[in-house]
Amino acid sequence: MSNLTKIAVLGAGSWGTVLADLLVNNGHQVDLWGNSAEMAAEINEQHTNRHYLPEFQINPAVHATLDLKETLTDAEAVLFVLPTAAIRPVAQQLVPVLAELKTQPILISATKGLELESHDRISQIMADVFPKEIADGLVIFSGPSHAENVATHDLTSLTVASQKMANARWVQKIFMNNYFRLYTNDDMLGVELGGALKNVIAIGAGMLHGLGYGDNAKAALMTRGLAEISRLGVKMGANPLTFMGLSGIGDLIVTCTSVNSRNWRCGNALGEGQPLAEVLANMGMVVEGVGTAEAVHELSQQMAVEMPISEAIYQVLYEEADLRAEITKLMHRDARNEAEFEN
Amino acid sequence: MSNLTKIAVLGAGSWGTVLADLLVNNGHQVDLWGNSAEMAAEINEQHTNRHYLPEFQINPAVHATLDLKETLTDAEAVLFVLPTAAIRPVAQQLVPVLAELKTQPILISATKGLELESHDRISQIMADVFPKEIADGLVIFSGPSHAENVATHDLTSLTVASQKMANARWVQKIFMNNYFRLYTNDDMLGVELGGALKNVIAIGAGMLHGLGYGDNAKAALMTRGLAEISRLGVKMGANPLTFMGLSGIGDLIVTCTSVNSRNWRCGNALGEGQPLAEVLANMGMVVEGVGTAEAVHELSQQMAVEMPISEAIYQVLYEEADLRAEITKLMHRDARNEAEFEN
Repeated sequence: MSNLTKIAVLGAGSWGTVLADLLVNNGHQVDLWGNSAEMAAEINEQHTNRHYLPEFQINPAVHATLDLKETLTDAEAVLFVLPTAAIRPVAQQLVPVLAELKTQPILISATKGLELESHDRISQIMADVFPKEIADGLVIFSGPSHAENVATHDLTSLTVASQKMANARWVQKIFMNNYFRLYTNDDMLGVELGGALKNVIAIGAGMLHGLGYGDNAKAALMTRGLAEISRLGVKMGANPLTFMGLSGIGDLIVTCTSVNSRNWRCGNALGEGQPLAEVLANMGMVVEGVGTAEAVHELSQQMAVEMPISEAIYQVLYEEADLRAEITKLMHRDARNEAEFEN
Repeated sequence: MSNLTKIAVLGAGSWGTVLADLLVNNGHQVDLWGNSAEMAAEINEQHTNRHYLPEFQINPAVHATLDLKETLTDAEAVLFVLPTAAIRPVAQQLVPVLAELKTQPILISATKGLELESHDRISQIMADVFPKEIADGLVIFSGPSHAENVATHDLTSLTVASQKMANARWVQKIFMNNYFRLYTNDDMLGVELGGALKNVIAIGAGMLHGLGYGDNAKAALMTRGLAEISRLGVKMGANPLTFMGLSGIGDLIVTCTSVNSRNWRCGNALGEGQPLAEVLANMGMVVEGVGTAEAVHELSQQMAVEMPISEAIYQVLYEEADLRAEITKLMHRDARNEAEFEN
C-alpha cells in the first residue's frame, strides 16, 4: 500500500461518494468519512450508497469509516465535500487530529456556498480554523459537476483554484483521467463566488420554468445573473474572466438547465405555486441557494453593488414578494449598457 | 401616418416576421420585404406565415411587399433579417434605391454568421457595399432570441451594438417593451463574432446529445467553446467581457440547449449517426453553423489561435473524422490553465 497516494474524503453524500470512487479508479487509496454508521456499513459491505445514488456501484476499494483519525492518518490530501454549514464544525474537529500527525495534508474543498451570518467563503472559514501554513495551501474544486454524470463516467471538466499553484497542479494530476478533466486557475475568490452565487440564480431559472417561461428568458436570466455575480466579484477583487470559466458560467449552465439540480427544483416548485416551507420539507436535501440568497442580499448591500435578480429572488424567498410582480419590475428597469462594473 | 416611425424589415423568415410584428405592436409602421409573392399575400390577407411560424397570428398592420423601393421610402431604419449568404446581394440591390432617397435610414442587422470564402462579418459586408457614412452607423442586433419565444411575448433580452452609440440607443428605444429588453454595447466586433461562432459550438452540443452524453459534458463544451471563441475574438481586437454577455454566452446557451435550434438539431442528428448530406436535406432551412465551421477553421489558422472544439467539429463535418475519436482527443489534451488569451 505504501506507494499509493492516500486521500481522505469528508462527506459521503452523492458528490463525496462519486469522487471517492473516481480517486480509487485512478489508483489512489481513499478513506471516505461520514457520520452515519449504517451508510458506512452499506458502502463497505454492499458497495452502494442508495440514499444518494440509487443506481451506483461503488468501487469496492473505497473504504468508509466514522473514525476521523483513521481517515486522516497518512492522507496526502483532505477533500471536504460537506454542506456549507458543516464545514466549520468539521474543520474544528480536524485541528487536534492534524496536530498529532507528522505530515500535514493539502486541504481541498468541493463545497460551494457562503456560510450563513458570517457570509464567509470556504477559504475564509479554513483561514479562521487552521494554521496559516495549512489554510494558505487550500485548493478549491468547482465547476459543472452533477455527481450522477460523473458516476456514469460521462465527460466532466472542472476548475481547481489555489493561491499555491503547485497545489492546484497536484490536484489536477491526482484527479484527471479520460472522463474527468481539470483546468487550473489562480483566482480563488472568483472561483468560490461563482460556485456559491450561482445557486441563487438556479432558483430563479427554476422559477421561470415553473411559471412557463421559455428558452430566451432562461438564457437572459443566466447571462444577466452572471453579470451581477461578476459585478459583485470584481468589486470584491476577483478577475472578471473567472466568471466566464467552468466555475462561473459552466456551473451556472448545468445548475440552471438540469432537472438534477436541487436549487432548480426548489425554484421550479415555487414557480408552480408551492409554498417555500412545503418545498423545503419535500426536498430532503440541503438547498444551498436559499441560505445563499440571504447572504447575497446582505453582501450586495455591504458592497453597494446592484444585484437586481438575486434581490428579486431574495424578496420572494424571505419577504413574501409576488414572483410575477418581481419579474415585471426587472423588465421595466431603465434601459442600460451591457457591462457595468462600476455600479 | 406621418408621426409614426417607419422601419423596413428585409426578410420574412421566422425572425423577420416576429420582429415586424413586435415593431407594429410598439406603435411603429413596418414594411416587411421578402421574395415570395405567395408568402407576402398570405401575410397581408391571412396575417399568417405558416411555413415558418405555423401557430402565429401576425398583427394585421404588418404590410408585406416585394417592392424594395416602397419598402425603403420614408423608412428611418432598415433591419436585415436574412441568411448570411443573402446579405451582400440584397445590400447591393439597396444601393441604387437608397441613392434616390432624400434621407438615409439607419442600418440594423439581426443576421448572425460569417460570409463563406471572404469570412467577412456582416459589418464588413456593409462597409464593402455602402458609402462610409451609412455603413459606419450600422447597429448589430444579437443575443438569445428564438423567434418562437418572442412570438408568444415570452421575455427576451438582447444586445444592440454599434460604433455610433446614439444609433444603438435609438434602436434600444424603438424595440424595447414589456417583453423585449435591450442592452447597448460598443464592441461590435465581439458581438458579431459571438453571434456567428456560437452556431458551430451548438452543432457540437447537439452531437453530444445525440451520442448520449450528459449535462456536465454539455456545460463544459459550452464553457470551453466560449473560451476559444473569446481567444479568437480578443486576438482580433474584441473585448473579452463581451463574450460574457447576451450576444456571447447568452446566445450560446439558448442555441445549445433548445430543441428549436437548427444548428443543435443538425448536430444531434449527426450524433445519432445520420450522414451530413441526409441531415441537411431534411432540415429545409439554412444551418448557418455548417458554413461557419469552415470559416472558423480558416480564420483560426490565419490568426494562429487554437480552437480545438471548433476544429474537431470542422473535421467531422468536412473531413469525415470519427466523432467519438475527436472527443477522446479533446479529453486527452495536455492539462492546462483555464484562461489563456495568448495562445
